[in-house]
Amino acid sequence: MSWQKTMDKLSLQNPVFATYVIAATIMILKGVSMSWLTVVRMMQVKGGFRSPEDIKKTPLNPEPNPKQLQPNERVERIRRIQLNDLENLPFFLVAGLLFVLTTEPSLLIARCLMYGYVVSRLLHFAAYFTARTHDTRAALWTVGSVILIFMTCWTLIAALAN
Amino acid sequence: MSWQKTMDKLSLQNPVFATYVIAATIMILKGVSMSWLTVVRMMQVKGGFRSPEDIKKTPLNPEPNPKQLQPNERVERIRRIQLNDLENLPFFLVAGLLFVLTTEPSLLIARCLMYGYVVSRLLHFAAYFTARTHDTRAALWTVGSVILIFMTCWTLIAALAN
Amino acid sequence: MSWQKTMDKLSLQNPVFATYVIAATIMILKGVSMSWLTVVRMMQVKGGFRSPEDIKKTPLNPEPNPKQLQPNERVERIRRIQLNDLENLPFFLVAGLLFVLTTEPSLLIARCLMYGYVVSRLLHFAAYFTARTHDTRAALWTVGSVILIFMTCWTLIAALAN
Repeated sequence: MSWQKTMDKLSLQNPVFATYVIAATIMILKGVSMSWLTVVRMMQVKGGFRSPEDIKKTPLNPEPNPKQLQPNERVERIRRIQLNDLENLPFFLVAGLLFVLTTEPSLLIARCLMYGYVVSRLLHFAAYFTARTHDTRAALWTVGSVILIFMTCWTLIAALAN
Repeated sequence: MSWQKTMDKLSLQNPVFATYVIAATIMILKGVSMSWLTVVRMMQVKGGFRSPEDIKKTPLNPEPNPKQLQPNERVERIRRIQLNDLENLPFFLVAGLLFVLTTEPSLLIARCLMYGYVVSRLLHFAAYFTARTHDTRAALWTVGSVILIFMTCWTLIAALAN
Repeated sequence: MSWQKTMDKLSLQNPVFATYVIAATIMILKGVSMSWLTVVRMMQVKGGFRSPEDIKKTPLNPEPNPKQLQPNERVERIRRIQLNDLENLPFFLVAGLLFVLTTEPSLLIARCLMYGYVVSRLLHFAAYFTARTHDTRAALWTVGSVILIFMTCWTLIAALAN
């Protein structure tokens, strides 16, 4: 019965949904980690701040200096990685959920797509973090983006065919 | 029975949910397309890069040049459009889903709101891409934003009234 | 029966879901408000624009001036607040939904986490808007981020333990 299928779909008893939940939560933790990594690097370099009030003297910044407001490449790199996440992860998080709800992928296909996406994003991070060439980074980004587009198109087609 | 309604709500047999899925997937594809358009433009102008390592010599960048790291307006325009997407689309994607789950809109109203949102965003892109005046762009942005606020308030009221 | 639980979970009759919907819609309205606040401030200072076409003469900009394209701190502050939202809210919106779907939190815990998140974000806004010290802002941001990480880890563990 279709209603039974629907409600099963959003239960962890549904291995396809469980796959999505694992992929989604890892990606959320990855995205949030970029904020923390930015904090760590700002504390390491004692700079890379952005707001005028950030050079007020405080317990965490006992010796403020106007130079602390200048862009710092070690901090800016993490911000660029984070921006790349923002351009990708929110769309994956919603696309994955709708994919689970509206298509009937086999568990194998769902795992390949979702864990493939996760792996591509973690490798993209590793390549960006260690300043590999633009070509390497672009190739890894492309894998994730193609998976995302593929899942989204499949979902759209399922909705239109309905 | 209420549980039957709930589970029906997330099935493509529910035309309101199908409307949401179509709108959401089109918006995801639109959002992801901005990344690809940025890539296309960076390749066209051979620049607009942001990371120091992007001017290393590679197969895709055989004649690197420090000028490639300078902002390029043709690329920056797409980045601005994409940032505008990030400020809007993720909120619409979640608001639309909660709207379907918690309110009982007629199919006509759901279609007007969701397809209206999609059309407003596509026209906003067209206006931004072709550098129409700020007034035109702002008017189109406003339509989408008002629809989003309307759906979100309706959902909040339904949850509070419960 | 598990299927009955699942479908109940996404109904407003489920107080944990209703808590999420209230928190999520308030956060969406907060996020969207930043766009409107940017508009208000751009109109107040008659500047802080970003696109070359924004200094064309129009009804809303009758006396254009190239200086209108220079960054304006009153506008940039709101943009920084908004970027901070984009780094946080979309992840909360999805994490909260998956948390409701996959864990069995008591209503008290769900309310503490979700309303705690909302309050931390509203206070973060107040601190950023009024230019409190970096320490104050960071402390408020940390509360929200820790709640988000906690909910996401709980969800991931539930999915892995399944």
